[in-house]
Amino acid sequence: VRVSIGDDAAVLAGDEKPSAISVDAAVEGVHFDRAWLSLRAVGERAISAALSDLAAMGSRPRCAVVALILPDALLDAELYELVDGIAEAQARYVCPIAGGNLARGRELSITTTVIGAQNGRPLLRSGAKAGDGLYVTGTLGEAALGLIALQQGNTALAPRAVERWRSPRARIAEGLALAASPHASAAIDVSDGLMQDLAHVCEASGVGCMLDASALPVPAEAHAATALAASMLQLALAGGEDYELLFAAREPVEGVAATRIGTFRREPGIALHDGHGRPLSLEVAPGFDHFGRTAEK
Amino acid sequence: VRVSIGDDAAVLAGDEKPSAISVDAAVEGVHFDRAWLSLRAVGERAISAALSDLAAMGSRPRCAVVALILPDALLDAELYELVDGIAEAQARYVCPIAGGNLARGRELSITTTVIGAQNGRPLLRSGAKAGDGLYVTGTLGEAALGLIALQQGNTALAPRAVERWRSPRARIAEGLALAASPHASAAIDVSDGLMQDLAHVCEASGVGCMLDASALPVPAEAHAATALAASMLQLALAGGEDYELLFAAREPVEGVAATRIGTFRREPGIALHDGHGRPLSLEVAPGFDHFGRTAEK
Repeated sequence: VRVSIGDDAAVLAGDEKPSAISVDAAVEGVHFDRAWLSLRAVGERAISAALSDLAAMGSRPRCAVVALILPDALLDAELYELVDGIAEAQARYVCPIAGGNLARGRELSITTTVIGAQNGRPLLRSGAKAGDGLYVTGTLGEAALGLIALQQGNTALAPRAVERWRSPRARIAEGLALAASPHASAAIDVSDGLMQDLAHVCEASGVGCMLDASALPVPAEAHAATALAASMLQLALAGGEDYELLFAAREPVEGVAATRIGTFRREPGIALHDGHGRPLSLEVAPGFDHFGRTAEK
Repeated sequence: VRVSIGDDAAVLAGDEKPSAISVDAAVEGVHFDRAWLSLRAVGERAISAALSDLAAMGSRPRCAVVALILPDALLDAELYELVDGIAEAQARYVCPIAGGNLARGRELSITTTVIGAQNGRPLLRSGAKAGDGLYVTGTLGEAALGLIALQQGNTALAPRAVERWRSPRARIAEGLALAASPHASAAIDVSDGLMQDLAHVCEASGVGCMLDASALPVPAEAHAATALAASMLQLALAGGEDYELLFAAREPVEGVAATRIGTFRREPGIALHDGHGRPLSLEVAPGFDHFGRTAEK
């Protein structure tokens, strides 16, 4: 074992190409609610979320194994729906389900272990250096916006965000490009929210970061946040489940569409500024402490 | 993926040495009860049960990843106890825990994915041939005897069997020796009970089996079965969780202590005889249908 607990995936040495391995669980009532998500989407989402950890290491998916805990009340048709979603993800990511386990339980859960092949060096959380740029793929806060729309029963306000929360995509191609680039120095996937995941990178790398609030790439439906009584800035900073890749790089990485949102520096901690150098306080920002997410890394 | 769902583990091609991968879950109230098992034993047992599937493939353990679903009511001290048991198994099997995941849930469960290196060819369920002998390591029915003693609150009658149920051992060394032998043709671990696991081998191999009831290796405390209102023969035939290796071989395999308990044959199905060629009926045997175990392979 070359890289162990504490990164997105563990890396096993000894093969021609090192293997990366990671595990993720989705529990009904904690990670998903069937009122908001079809069982098909639950299955698809479980695979995407697990593969996102491989993406963050720059690994190519090789296979997955899936352990299902199934309540007695689950109908066969519901199980098939769940399995259909898993099969859809298997096809999309060309990631065969190599094995599985079925167990009875009171609570539905899906635990997915994914194995990847490491073509280049693994992208660790610990490689960011002072002076590196902080980049993120795609947009931030979109999944959280979708979740809030669902919670408030107002999906018409942000249909794309709802779909984004329901059906996230692991950034496999981007992860492979980052691992192949000499410029990328660290990466993590944004599953717990930008602030929390960035803090993991800073801590592992022994650096701090200056974050530019005005640069955060917000989704097309950002305008809906106000109507949903939310702050788009807060969603972008603290909302989880976007499964974008957050990475450190000396300069932009060719072939990876990403936005530069900050700069790593020697001083520890994460500081936020407004784009004109004026500091923004994280503490007083409404909502930031009220997401109630628990770190599950 | 060279061998997929339907064997004890999946085998991945493409590495210098193929990898074997398997996943197993233990759910509180379904697979264990804290009244009978310390959390330390729960953790240790989860790793042993998962590694038993690698043993049945003839794989050497490389690493494991463990996903825990933890109820809010679980105390920190209880979590540490569980982790201690996992660590103990990690040391015993020289199988590093390479990664993990913690999630909240209402029901405690441990899902263990194990990765092994395949030095020789994998031992499949499908290789048994008519004429091969059927062998089993260790004893059969001991774990079931221990479980009954626990259920009846009479552990003093069969203390070794209780310990065997609480703390099973994966037969890693035996599996490696079998995979290295030219004589062994198929293997499975006895997790669901002899009859059920033998049926898996027969079905996968397209053969039947003649089983000698008088040859079944019963535990030293077999005499306690009567006092516990159980039949030792039934426990040996249908009791699960022994985690012994059941294998087919043309002749005894050097270095693997095992008992020959039958012979594979062309006629499908499993027939039982009493050692003098007199058939025994499985259907009328008391208790056989009342174990209520569900197949989880």
